[in-house]
Amino acid sequence: MSLSLNQWTTRRWSVAESVDGCVRHELAAVGLWREKVAEQGLAETVKLVRQAGLRVSSLCRGGFLTAGGLPGEEGRRAFARALDDNRRAIDEAAELAAACLVMVVGGLPGVRPGEPLPASGGSREPATEGSREPATDGFAPGSPGFSRDLAGARERVAEALGVLAPYAGERGVRLALEPLHPVYCPDRAVLSTLGQALDLCLAYPPEQVGVVVDTFHVWWDPRLPDDLARARGRIAAYQVCDYLHPLPADVLLGRGMMGDGVIDFGPITRAVAGAGYTGDVEVEIFNADVWAADPDQVVATMKARYAALVPAA
Amino acid sequence: MSLSLNQWTTRRWSVAESVDGCVRHELAAVGLWREKVAEQGLAETVKLVRQAGLRVSSLCRGGFLTAGGLPGEEGRRAFARALDDNRRAIDEAAELAAACLVMVVGGLPGVRPGEPLPASGGSREPATEGSREPATDGFAPGSPGFSRDLAGARERVAEALGVLAPYAGERGVRLALEPLHPVYCPDRAVLSTLGQALDLCLAYPPEQVGVVVDTFHVWWDPRLPDDLARARGRIAAYQVCDYLHPLPADVLLGRGMMGDGVIDFGPITRAVAGAGYTGDVEVEIFNADVWAADPDQVVATMKARYAALVPAA
Repeated sequence: MSLSLNQWTTRRWSVAESVDGCVRHELAAVGLWREKVAEQGLAETVKLVRQAGLRVSSLCRGGFLTAGGLPGEEGRRAFARALDDNRRAIDEAAELAAACLVMVVGGLPGVRPGEPLPASGGSREPATEGSREPATDGFAPGSPGFSRDLAGARERVAEALGVLAPYAGERGVRLALEPLHPVYCPDRAVLSTLGQALDLCLAYPPEQVGVVVDTFHVWWDPRLPDDLARARGRIAAYQVCDYLHPLPADVLLGRGMMGDGVIDFGPITRAVAGAGYTGDVEVEIFNADVWAADPDQVVATMKARYAALVPAA
Repeated sequence: MSLSLNQWTTRRWSVAESVDGCVRHELAAVGLWREKVAEQGLAETVKLVRQAGLRVSSLCRGGFLTAGGLPGEEGRRAFARALDDNRRAIDEAAELAAACLVMVVGGLPGVRPGEPLPASGGSREPATEGSREPATDGFAPGSPGFSRDLAGARERVAEALGVLAPYAGERGVRLALEPLHPVYCPDRAVLSTLGQALDLCLAYPPEQVGVVVDTFHVWWDPRLPDDLARARGRIAAYQVCDYLHPLPADVLLGRGMMGDGVIDFGPITRAVAGAGYTGDVEVEIFNADVWAADPDQVVATMKARYAALVPAA
């Protein structure tokens, strides 16, 4: 395994700056984000990583496949849009020769990251807004603005995978299903455990569909050792960062530099290695302080912490 | 199944006020908290619930058994103190004829709810505090102030259960292991899934050790239907509240009135009923707005929302 910089860790850097940074810090791989690739231009990005001799350890990200769970025409259109966008992401991953396309599958239909539930979500005056007393009058079960059908949302993901996996396979791209910490189940990923992601994989060839193991998302899972053992041949990416305590108010930014949180990386890395994974290890940190720091300093810290805490041996 | 008021939902009410409130709103059961019982007095509480003809659907709570994972004498003392306190909780549950003693097992040793990690937690300057750049100098792996040994903490829980289950059994008290949402794994409960709790139960007779199914904690779990099916005879308590989105900054207070969040209660209640559970259903809400509201209004809302959203039929 060798260290890779996921470019969201040094979010201020463009693709060109990230590529330069990897070369300067003697890293052999970079994880790219579609937004940044679009800013740089896809062809230019391909040229830059090729000239630098870097591997693209992943392209982030496809997914958000669950909107099809909204009723009627709105749902059908949203599902078609999601499939189109994912086909474009697969095409980009193919151009970049990325080791995989990371798939964040999406949350409950109509629930938006960080935003309050649609006002029609079962209560005209959600108790979370302001200090009003909970409403008894006017409460109507049902939720035209979003869906609480978690099982249905999970079925939409399986359905979309049935369309996208063959498309990816034809282009030599591996989809990497990323289970996210259950705290993100409402708004970002109804895929919540490694075991659930593996179960989804098994209908497809390993070179078409694998999983992402991200320490932040899986560290707490009592089934992790067993599920990593059965992930042999299916781990498409290994991402590391720490889990901060307490989490910041925006839980999306609770990812910390290794050593600053509660995760013991050794046992997880050993189990990932034990499952036969020999690819790159991306450090992917969403964290306001890390983003505010000098990116070169962040990469230096990342290398030192990685060496001290992450390797299996 | 019938509705029970967990007294933390109407947190401003004393035991006496909660008992009066249950009678006034025609509820047949109440879930009590040890702090409130201590304020009222144990003997007085026994008298009040008996006179009112109420069932005590649970006593909250025992647990916090993991501190024994701290090194040396500090760990040994902490473990002994935790066992002593749990024996007292069992004695109180016996006096109250509570249907169970809810066990929140504790997080990583030395990690405190809502507090930053001990300063020695692997980094002298955690990146979460202030806007300092991540430290590279002075970083030393290892964490004298707390433990990252999650597997070890889980072993401490099993070990403590080996002491406490027979003690509870002799007094006719049923311990109810509560898996908490994984977001509470660092500081409150290394017991993170229903499946994990069931696995711990199976070494003991069903009347000694069961599980709590709390919708807030388990709604996201892809294994929930399967684990509820195998929970037959082991469900000691069923607690309901909603999961708010987005969570408030203090994630402990993300519990909402049914209908205000993302949980579809019907399928969960049906599976709980399918596992043979016929006990009381407690509504337990930790929520600043609910606590600020008039408790009688909260109970009225609770009854209406429960009837509209929770029953299996």
